[in-house]
Amino acid sequence: MTQSITISLDAMGGDNGVEVVLGGAEIALKRHPDTRFLLFGKENIVGPALAAHPALAAASEVRHCDVSVEMDVKPSIALRQGRYHSSMWRAIQAVKDGEASVCVSAGNTGALMAMARFCLRTMPAIERPAIAAIWPTMRGDSIVLDVGATIGADAEQLINFSVMGGAMARALFAIQRPTVGLLNVGVEEIKGVEEVRRAGQILRETDLPFIEYIGFVEGNDLGKGTSDVVVTEGFSGNIALKTAEGTARQIAQYLRAAMEQSLLSKIGYLLAKGAFSRLREKMDPSKSNGGVFLGLNGLVIKSHGSASPEGFASAIGMGDAMARNDLQKKLSDDLEQFQNVLVDEPKSKD
Amino acid sequence: MTQSITISLDAMGGDNGVEVVLGGAEIALKRHPDTRFLLFGKENIVGPALAAHPALAAASEVRHCDVSVEMDVKPSIALRQGRYHSSMWRAIQAVKDGEASVCVSAGNTGALMAMARFCLRTMPAIERPAIAAIWPTMRGDSIVLDVGATIGADAEQLINFSVMGGAMARALFAIQRPTVGLLNVGVEEIKGVEEVRRAGQILRETDLPFIEYIGFVEGNDLGKGTSDVVVTEGFSGNIALKTAEGTARQIAQYLRAAMEQSLLSKIGYLLAKGAFSRLREKMDPSKSNGGVFLGLNGLVIKSHGSASPEGFASAIGMGDAMARNDLQKKLSDDLEQFQNVLVDEPKSKD
Repeated sequence: MTQSITISLDAMGGDNGVEVVLGGAEIALKRHPDTRFLLFGKENIVGPALAAHPALAAASEVRHCDVSVEMDVKPSIALRQGRYHSSMWRAIQAVKDGEASVCVSAGNTGALMAMARFCLRTMPAIERPAIAAIWPTMRGDSIVLDVGATIGADAEQLINFSVMGGAMARALFAIQRPTVGLLNVGVEEIKGVEEVRRAGQILRETDLPFIEYIGFVEGNDLGKGTSDVVVTEGFSGNIALKTAEGTARQIAQYLRAAMEQSLLSKIGYLLAKGAFSRLREKMDPSKSNGGVFLGLNGLVIKSHGSASPEGFASAIGMGDAMARNDLQKKLSDDLEQFQNVLVDEPKSKD
Repeated sequence: MTQSITISLDAMGGDNGVEVVLGGAEIALKRHPDTRFLLFGKENIVGPALAAHPALAAASEVRHCDVSVEMDVKPSIALRQGRYHSSMWRAIQAVKDGEASVCVSAGNTGALMAMARFCLRTMPAIERPAIAAIWPTMRGDSIVLDVGATIGADAEQLINFSVMGGAMARALFAIQRPTVGLLNVGVEEIKGVEEVRRAGQILRETDLPFIEYIGFVEGNDLGKGTSDVVVTEGFSGNIALKTAEGTARQIAQYLRAAMEQSLLSKIGYLLAKGAFSRLREKMDPSKSNGGVFLGLNGLVIKSHGSASPEGFASAIGMGDAMARNDLQKKLSDDLEQFQNVLVDEPKSKD
């Protein structure tokens, strides 16, 4: 199944500008030579930079945009200044118009979300979108959502996130019926907020055919990979994600300091260098770069603003895989099927 | 300043029973030979076990209690069955009666919190208590609260947590004016829930003499140690704590696997063994074992149920330090002073 995929890129987004975007696209192109790119940005910047990447240039079309969205501007202002004309908006618009299957930007998260919502609108039955992240675990990768779009999601939203996370796991991991856990706290009596409890009850009762709800999971289950999908509201999800990143960085620093402490440990480090580089690769944040906006009428991926070309290529690769596996169609099918299950099962169980 | 401290221990609490409690107390006694212990539990169990620890026996008094609180019983049932008579209750009661300066238990968290609230009651001006944890960071230790007692704390509670966390930092770390950050999410536009924003505004405006409010911090600031105290509501705090523990365990597993992968890496591991054991020590969860219940009329510390004797000794050590540094008095002074500042500053700034 090698269908050609077109990906729209906001060439002006990110802390490190067009070079990272083009460098990332070139790496992604080597992995999937049939990919096509639409590059949105200032022609006098993108054009000359692209000249250094002839293979990429042959697979790309540059679309000139006057306006770039600044990294630190407020979303409302970005929307006012950049609607219709900015490279970010037009990269999203390409997905809406069916010209591209997925849009990738390393720009300002809030602006990207605001524009994506405004341009693509939420899917039927979805009130608010979620941002999903790939989470490396002891057992392989999991999907965690929401990591920052919908603060304080209610029970219905948590259920929609479960269905969407499940569809993403099916598209990316090729699992028939992914397991889904609801993130909760383990202190008895106060076990969880009301909304999480209610969402759990409904997920259990509806017993959906395309996800397997396994109950509550806790923060330490994230690293264990207890479930394929972990669902939570955006505040705690964002804090969990950044806490894990911070802890990984902290331990890497401890490890470095420990290895530099004596001559023996330095020699040991040299001998075990291969093992350390495998470890570094395992912990490399660029390998799981990319937050996926779910619940909109089109796929948008947010790359870390400070991503390296390798990291940006990961975000593109994720978009590529989701497009090739028809994630957007899976999402709408699953959500529709879920609505039908809800209608078929009247509230008699209450 | 060597004043003798009496600590009450729930000798029946924890997954591994009386041996861990007594083993931990013995280690703690070696560190502070002037400590006295009140041991609450079944005499026919505690008595014989204590015979193996003569030094500890000489510093301890055993108080017989018929009832033990099970590890998995619901707090409401524990309260019904164990009020007044259980080893857990009576260890707390000893603090209330002024016989002990602090109570330590490795028992059921929910039951311990329920009994502590019922027996000690909350301090004036405190509506709900918090659980504070010591968080090892790149910069030394920080204090994080609440890690699970008050789900969805409101602005006023977050401010009280800030004041109490500051008092704890002064007592434990001997810092004159600890820095305090409010945990928040960094996605623009949706920057934080209303309650966090309101708490931040009030903390900034009141400009307290005993804490330095530094603004919002994010999940990755926890590992960095950006502030001495990090304040959040119990749901996200519990998830952050367990996510960090899980990530540390995950990386330790990666590291082990990497070191076992080749002969060279095994030799490297042997040479760098000292460095690895320093690293292990740095990451050792038993070193920062102990959740401190703040906001009650008396100090109670919850040890991990599965703590080793070394871990239980850490929890005792923390209680010892807090008692010697008069944490309870600092808490009430600071809270009172804070109330005065609030009264002195009418709402003219709004």
